[in-house]
Amino acid sequence: MKIVTLGEIMLRLSPEGNGRFVQADCFRIIPGGGEANVAVSLANYGHQSCFVSKLPEHEIGQIAVNALRRYGVDTQYIVRGGARVGLYYAETGASMRPSKVIYDRAHAAIAECDPQEFDFDEIMDGAQWFHWSGITPALSNQAALLTRLACEAAHRHHVTVSCDLNYRKKLWTSEKAISVMSPLMQYVDVCIGNEEDAQLCLGFRPDADVEGGKTDADGYHRIFEQMIRQFGFQYVVSTLRESYSATCNGWKALIFNGKEFYESKRYEINPIIDRVGGGDAFSAGLIHGLLTKKTQGEALEFAVAASALKHTIGGDFNLVSEDEVESLVKGNANGRVQR
Amino acid sequence: MKIVTLGEIMLRLSPEGNGRFVQADCFRIIPGGGEANVAVSLANYGHQSCFVSKLPEHEIGQIAVNALRRYGVDTQYIVRGGARVGLYYAETGASMRPSKVIYDRAHAAIAECDPQEFDFDEIMDGAQWFHWSGITPALSNQAALLTRLACEAAHRHHVTVSCDLNYRKKLWTSEKAISVMSPLMQYVDVCIGNEEDAQLCLGFRPDADVEGGKTDADGYHRIFEQMIRQFGFQYVVSTLRESYSATCNGWKALIFNGKEFYESKRYEINPIIDRVGGGDAFSAGLIHGLLTKKTQGEALEFAVAASALKHTIGGDFNLVSEDEVESLVKGNANGRVQR
Amino acid sequence: MKIVTLGEIMLRLSPEGNGRFVQADCFRIIPGGGEANVAVSLANYGHQSCFVSKLPEHEIGQIAVNALRRYGVDTQYIVRGGARVGLYYAETGASMRPSKVIYDRAHAAIAECDPQEFDFDEIMDGAQWFHWSGITPALSNQAALLTRLACEAAHRHHVTVSCDLNYRKKLWTSEKAISVMSPLMQYVDVCIGNEEDAQLCLGFRPDADVEGGKTDADGYHRIFEQMIRQFGFQYVVSTLRESYSATCNGWKALIFNGKEFYESKRYEINPIIDRVGGGDAFSAGLIHGLLTKKTQGEALEFAVAASALKHTIGGDFNLVSEDEVESLVKGNANGRVQR
Amino acid sequence: MKIVTLGEIMLRLSPEGNGRFVQADCFRIIPGGGEANVAVSLANYGHQSCFVSKLPEHEIGQIAVNALRRYGVDTQYIVRGGARVGLYYAETGASMRPSKVIYDRAHAAIAECDPQEFDFDEIMDGAQWFHWSGITPALSNQAALLTRLACEAAHRHHVTVSCDLNYRKKLWTSEKAISVMSPLMQYVDVCIGNEEDAQLCLGFRPDADVEGGKTDADGYHRIFEQMIRQFGFQYVVSTLRESYSATCNGWKALIFNGKEFYESKRYEINPIIDRVGGGDAFSAGLIHGLLTKKTQGEALEFAVAASALKHTIGGDFNLVSEDEVESLVKGNANGRVQR
Amino acid sequence: MKIVTLGEIMLRLSPEGNGRFVQADCFRIIPGGGEANVAVSLANYGHQSCFVSKLPEHEIGQIAVNALRRYGVDTQYIVRGGARVGLYYAETGASMRPSKVIYDRAHAAIAECDPQEFDFDEIMDGAQWFHWSGITPALSNQAALLTRLACEAAHRHHVTVSCDLNYRKKLWTSEKAISVMSPLMQYVDVCIGNEEDAQLCLGFRPDADVEGGKTDADGYHRIFEQMIRQFGFQYVVSTLRESYSATCNGWKALIFNGKEFYESKRYEINPIIDRVGGGDAFSAGLIHGLLTKKTQGEALEFAVAASALKHTIGGDFNLVSEDEVESLVKGNANGRVQR
Amino acid sequence: MKIVTLGEIMLRLSPEGNGRFVQADCFRIIPGGGEANVAVSLANYGHQSCFVSKLPEHEIGQIAVNALRRYGVDTQYIVRGGARVGLYYAETGASMRPSKVIYDRAHAAIAECDPQEFDFDEIMDGAQWFHWSGITPALSNQAALLTRLACEAAHRHHVTVSCDLNYRKKLWTSEKAISVMSPLMQYVDVCIGNEEDAQLCLGFRPDADVEGGKTDADGYHRIFEQMIRQFGFQYVVSTLRESYSATCNGWKALIFNGKEFYESKRYEINPIIDRVGGGDAFSAGLIHGLLTKKTQGEALEFAVAASALKHTIGGDFNLVSEDEVESLVKGNANGRVQR
Repeated sequence: MKIVTLGEIMLRLSPEGNGRFVQADCFRIIPGGGEANVAVSLANYGHQSCFVSKLPEHEIGQIAVNALRRYGVDTQYIVRGGARVGLYYAETGASMRPSKVIYDRAHAAIAECDPQEFDFDEIMDGAQWFHWSGITPALSNQAALLTRLACEAAHRHHVTVSCDLNYRKKLWTSEKAISVMSPLMQYVDVCIGNEEDAQLCLGFRPDADVEGGKTDADGYHRIFEQMIRQFGFQYVVSTLRESYSATCNGWKALIFNGKEFYESKRYEINPIIDRVGGGDAFSAGLIHGLLTKKTQGEALEFAVAASALKHTIGGDFNLVSEDEVESLVKGNANGRVQR
Repeated sequence: MKIVTLGEIMLRLSPEGNGRFVQADCFRIIPGGGEANVAVSLANYGHQSCFVSKLPEHEIGQIAVNALRRYGVDTQYIVRGGARVGLYYAETGASMRPSKVIYDRAHAAIAECDPQEFDFDEIMDGAQWFHWSGITPALSNQAALLTRLACEAAHRHHVTVSCDLNYRKKLWTSEKAISVMSPLMQYVDVCIGNEEDAQLCLGFRPDADVEGGKTDADGYHRIFEQMIRQFGFQYVVSTLRESYSATCNGWKALIFNGKEFYESKRYEINPIIDRVGGGDAFSAGLIHGLLTKKTQGEALEFAVAASALKHTIGGDFNLVSEDEVESLVKGNANGRVQR
Repeated sequence: MKIVTLGEIMLRLSPEGNGRFVQADCFRIIPGGGEANVAVSLANYGHQSCFVSKLPEHEIGQIAVNALRRYGVDTQYIVRGGARVGLYYAETGASMRPSKVIYDRAHAAIAECDPQEFDFDEIMDGAQWFHWSGITPALSNQAALLTRLACEAAHRHHVTVSCDLNYRKKLWTSEKAISVMSPLMQYVDVCIGNEEDAQLCLGFRPDADVEGGKTDADGYHRIFEQMIRQFGFQYVVSTLRESYSATCNGWKALIFNGKEFYESKRYEINPIIDRVGGGDAFSAGLIHGLLTKKTQGEALEFAVAASALKHTIGGDFNLVSEDEVESLVKGNANGRVQR
Repeated sequence: MKIVTLGEIMLRLSPEGNGRFVQADCFRIIPGGGEANVAVSLANYGHQSCFVSKLPEHEIGQIAVNALRRYGVDTQYIVRGGARVGLYYAETGASMRPSKVIYDRAHAAIAECDPQEFDFDEIMDGAQWFHWSGITPALSNQAALLTRLACEAAHRHHVTVSCDLNYRKKLWTSEKAISVMSPLMQYVDVCIGNEEDAQLCLGFRPDADVEGGKTDADGYHRIFEQMIRQFGFQYVVSTLRESYSATCNGWKALIFNGKEFYESKRYEINPIIDRVGGGDAFSAGLIHGLLTKKTQGEALEFAVAASALKHTIGGDFNLVSEDEVESLVKGNANGRVQR
Repeated sequence: MKIVTLGEIMLRLSPEGNGRFVQADCFRIIPGGGEANVAVSLANYGHQSCFVSKLPEHEIGQIAVNALRRYGVDTQYIVRGGARVGLYYAETGASMRPSKVIYDRAHAAIAECDPQEFDFDEIMDGAQWFHWSGITPALSNQAALLTRLACEAAHRHHVTVSCDLNYRKKLWTSEKAISVMSPLMQYVDVCIGNEEDAQLCLGFRPDADVEGGKTDADGYHRIFEQMIRQFGFQYVVSTLRESYSATCNGWKALIFNGKEFYESKRYEINPIIDRVGGGDAFSAGLIHGLLTKKTQGEALEFAVAASALKHTIGGDFNLVSEDEVESLVKGNANGRVQR
Repeated sequence: MKIVTLGEIMLRLSPEGNGRFVQADCFRIIPGGGEANVAVSLANYGHQSCFVSKLPEHEIGQIAVNALRRYGVDTQYIVRGGARVGLYYAETGASMRPSKVIYDRAHAAIAECDPQEFDFDEIMDGAQWFHWSGITPALSNQAALLTRLACEAAHRHHVTVSCDLNYRKKLWTSEKAISVMSPLMQYVDVCIGNEEDAQLCLGFRPDADVEGGKTDADGYHRIFEQMIRQFGFQYVVSTLRESYSATCNGWKALIFNGKEFYESKRYEINPIIDRVGGGDAFSAGLIHGLLTKKTQGEALEFAVAASALKHTIGGDFNLVSEDEVESLVKGNANGRVQR
């Protein structure tokens, strides 16, 4: 199935292993970015996964294009031009030392693009699904307009739309986010994000009676109900991370389709190899699940298992096959050697 | 003491660290193979450890010979010739992601050897022990014949014989295994393998009353008794692995000499650095233990400690000294720095 | 503030990751040494941290000087000359396999120095603190004399003196240690070391009634009281390590100022990336804490948090900022990504 | 333009730098193979470059597919299945020490394919050019049949066909080669190969009077004339390598279109970074040149410059752009930094 | 002697060895920049070498500071703040393939600095020499103003000023360069640059009669005479590079002090390990030479030898000692092992 | 044939590639040493090559033992004990920058050995050849005694003795060398070394009439005649190196058997990968040649070709086969790929 994602792909520059920035004498080059990560996962699951972005014509831009092609992403809608590939520096923590990210993404080609360079009617033609995240419109006014144009075209072409709210305080204020994101919610069918994201991106205020018990399943159920009432989503979905340390996390997720509420199995991941891209692996798993599974519960279990596996893989991309995810969904978590 | 092992040595090709195959841009070259791993351990413990195999004359064959020589294995009985060194690709899992092995060992020199190239009377002359595993006869009909010739020569020269049953479904069917392995059991003094291996390799069927409780010590005791009755082994030995994840395992072992049943201390290994070769480290530790310790219990504790240490060492070979194993047997498991 | 440390800086030569010595084909070069590690931490916290030592003029000596300069240590008092840079080989254990250290530090430039090459009146001029450890006088008779000259100059210049007893049985006997160290205690204000170090370095014998309960806080309290009575320290401080394995340790510390006894928060570190230098990170954190915090308790919490973080960083040096330590003191131990 | 290539893609396993096989502890993974190398070059020049082959479904097969996708090759016609990816081990020489190649390509998926798995009418539909080399039919009888079916389909679809004779004595005898290759020459428009290849692959015998002067341009002219007369080629083309050492080569080429003979500029390449794939880079440059340039001379100059550049690039693939080749054709060979 | 340099320090990100950008999976981190390179050389020669710049407070900025400290540069005048460390990507060519540089330095902290953050009266106090290059004022209007303020302060403090014209067409037009650079020439005592740089940066037009023979020594003599006449320099100096390939260059230099013209020895460098920073190594050698040698000829020979050695060292910094340069000046170029 | 060598094996610690010491963050571990290098070559040529030395029991000593075993050297006569493995640091030059060696070999186990630990009657029993160099007796008085004992035993057992004079000014003075070496010459059959070595090690003074023309073949002829007259050697042999740069050398050799003088082919090596061990490769080639070839000329050509190849191989050991040397002797120096 043709699935469209829109966003930025950056180069992550990281010291080897658990090294600190100031110890590094080389950086691993790890291409990634929220929607690009989703695109790679979807290509892994066999879809025609089209990533829409803008990248410079020079070889550094080509590195990003090649990384996507390598894993089967359709790059035909990537516009070439502009000066910079966005970067971020990341070091990987351990135990009580957190991982650390330093962004150097301002002035990237996609942030300074002219939205007219993209023909969204051509892009959305024949597509089944369009996914974006709150990071993209946060990049710049041009990127916000770009996102709106993409949503409108998706709407015209009857494409299902999912949005990972993903509020990033380094990129914009909550006020700005609300002014940009709120009007776009009319196009969104599947909303991925917890109540805090909804508050910061959408100005959502949970009812008083919900506030009290929001950390249990019942609390989430009521919050999700209210979000659907307010924004008209078809699904509200959220992951729940329990951070014990940089090395060990608990991980599960919740979904509500307006009628039924479902809570997934919980995974304890120890050790975490790389948690960057965990949420994106979840979004991709969810999209694949909702497109191919019978129930929202099966879709959610696929998404949670896929993203749990992501934590065991270095880099932003979730390089697992559908079979590997299904095997974990079925309970094969004992790590015995596959010969 | 002169100890003979017979089998294949392959090159394991592995991505760095926990990398996936599709992320790799180079492979670590890790020589190994069931009996070769046993041979290296025995050389480490000070024996004249003779590994018998066939390897091509070219430099890739030489890589395997050199790896054995480096760790003190006597390679004088390795026949040189043939076209291929067997390979296997392996990636190392983490948490709930299992390690994965892809074999490329068909047509290896040892599998296509002419058994007449080996002079087993010379090889077994002066030897104390001969060890082989179920992998070797599974390689090909020639290799099965080779194994039989080796067993017969060992018998002629009054050499103690141990066999690690090690059923591998990728190499042969249970039917084929039974037809090849069963006739060889008359030569085997020490049988290493659990009841499942015995079933698949030897057609062993535990009595009905044993079936029920087979997972506790008592159950194993009765199964081992029945195996000795049926095949005339001097010892039956088995390891027990509890797989919690690719990173954390429990590990212990059991031995029965026809009279007494002994269950070893249990180790919890976390993190596992590399579990490939853990069983071979156990076999080598057991052989060394039975040759040098007063009781089967002491032999088994040496074997279990040796193989627990193997899990903390990268590569197939268990590069530990006798002193290091003894130190762990004595309870020094707290990991304090040895200065 | 100007802080002086005196000691040896060596090159640690280590296989990659958890590799064993005999597997290595290259060694990481990791400059370090007790007091040098303290010096780097203090430079990280913004002090004028002067490390006093002797290093050959050749490029291998320069490697050590450059490592100190890189992290902001003032190297102006390092005398250049002599033939050798001290070395130590170290491999990093995992699970029940301990890390292992092989020293090759005899005949290093500092051990064979002429104490007259150092002008301690110039060095101590304007200094606030002088730190040394029991390793330095253990290196050689010259180094012992050097330490005494430094202590005397510190005393003349009214510089606070801390000493990490740090008994090393590979370097000297307890008898020799006591004869050298005891006369130096008159200059020491802050004694870092447990009762075992005190016994071996100072000939300290805890009262009979203390012996019984020495492993609980109350026991330590009474031992510390006795040490202060006997040696006249202003503070006695000790860390407590619980070694579960080479990968997982518990870690906390105790301080007594003659009046109040304080026991720090306990950290469980899993996985340990590199525990070498953990004690030095503690000493540096304590010095910084005592110089800048209001209470001994705050100083100790800073020191324990700093050294817990050290365990998550490769190499001897504790490459953390004051802010990062403070963040952990405040309880941010969940390892969430810092964006 | 749609261009089809047919052949094997292998993994080259190589020690780092100039290391010898027996020194290696890891192998660089370098995907490559005659026609695959041509396909990558053509994708670099902007064509729809379709590589036709068979590769196992497992991850090692996927490594090869991903390498092609990374550089823009269309992999839709690659059949998945079979057991092995062909391998070759290669070490890189220096000065008077030659590079060395050890093949391990027998039983590769493409060599054991069923030609019916490929739909050449679909593959050749809309194609402008089809390129193959003498290596492909040499792999096995199935591969020879596969090549014939491809040639016939190309003929049916009026696709221009080029063939690089590329005789490999390790793969077949001259007799076998002649019996397979000769009947295929009727489909070939552009023959790449020198008179020695023509002799071994096609049974070509130059006239007596040509023999004498064959090493100068005039000699080649007459040989090429005779080859065209005998086999009906549209073009005969050959490269000329002068091997001074493993590090320094001279490099030029010759072309004859039945009327005019053209000899290219000569390049001296020093140092050679990697000469594997130099001939394939030439073939790709020639195809691109003949498709887009006005004269055979311009096409040949593009081909020679492209392949000269290949010698300065590690790996089989010629990762240069059309602009970079054109710049060298124009004479920019002084190596000044491009800022 | 206190020597001040002003400019940008960037991180060069480079593939290993001769790898191309699109092949890279990691980048070497190589700190460097015209004036920073000069500063490191001068610290190597024993001067108090103060580098003035602005760098972000975060760890990526710290990497640059630490690199300078490691090699002994005084970093006390580096202002911390701003968002970006300038970057440039560089791949290293070979033979006829040129090295390639892609800049990503816009919006670096130094380019967006507020010149008031720098106290040049304090900086120039006690300094003997101030060096800058045409790159610094080209970065931005703020950086141009910064350069002017520095020159004026140097003038007030009677500091000798050298300028490497270094025209970079990617940073500014010749018109802009002339308008900024010309007024600054009144402060410059030593002008480093050829007649082309003088044309583009200063609007210099050689007399018609000079034009003709400008490529021989006589031609340069007359051009230098004219430059001194026009701009009042004390010395005009220029290097001459003969680019045979990316691997082999000829290298010499010329100096004119208004009276005498001197042409240096010529070096042929083969292979070049890294030519980036060659010109900066020359500038540093010249400054050191003019400060410490008796004649301009000796100074020039030191500078040329120093920069020839730079070509044999990876990275921007010329990590050679004064002794090593002197040894080459004396003619020890045969590369015999120094034991 | 059983061949005995006596000497030290050290670990060479080297930065990667052409990196300088102060740039290194890891060292390659390269075991080597004059006689050890000879031993490895002889094992490569199929001899029972016994290396006699002393090495510590710890793992660093084991690294050296394993390196020898890996390449087939018989290590049974290596005594284990003592504290240190000798080290040397080496960086590899390029162009006009020389390679640089810093020794850290004092106090190595072999230098501090007790000669009584070695049973030379057992060692020389059955041996054909004994080789040593002037480095071994230079290590210490014990090592000098050890060398004498070995020579005497060789004499008793009628073993041919070769000596590479190899004067090292860092290890001893010429006076000391002459006093130790001269009395040992009575045992030497084959003397390897030029007239300068003979002067410094043996106090040799060429006749006045020889001095004049000593640099041409005729001059060498007369010097060699005089050396044989004076010391009673059977052969005098010397290599001749022309050092153009660290990257390019000329290389040939001369031999005189008392009757005939022979001058070998000359090789130009460019680039040199690693010249350390070149002389040892020559000695080994000469020993093998004299033992297996018909004439001294053939022996010398084998030795020169072997050592030319050594320059193209990283590390001290000459990892070439007899076939590879023979191929170069026959003139195959064009570096064409061996498939």
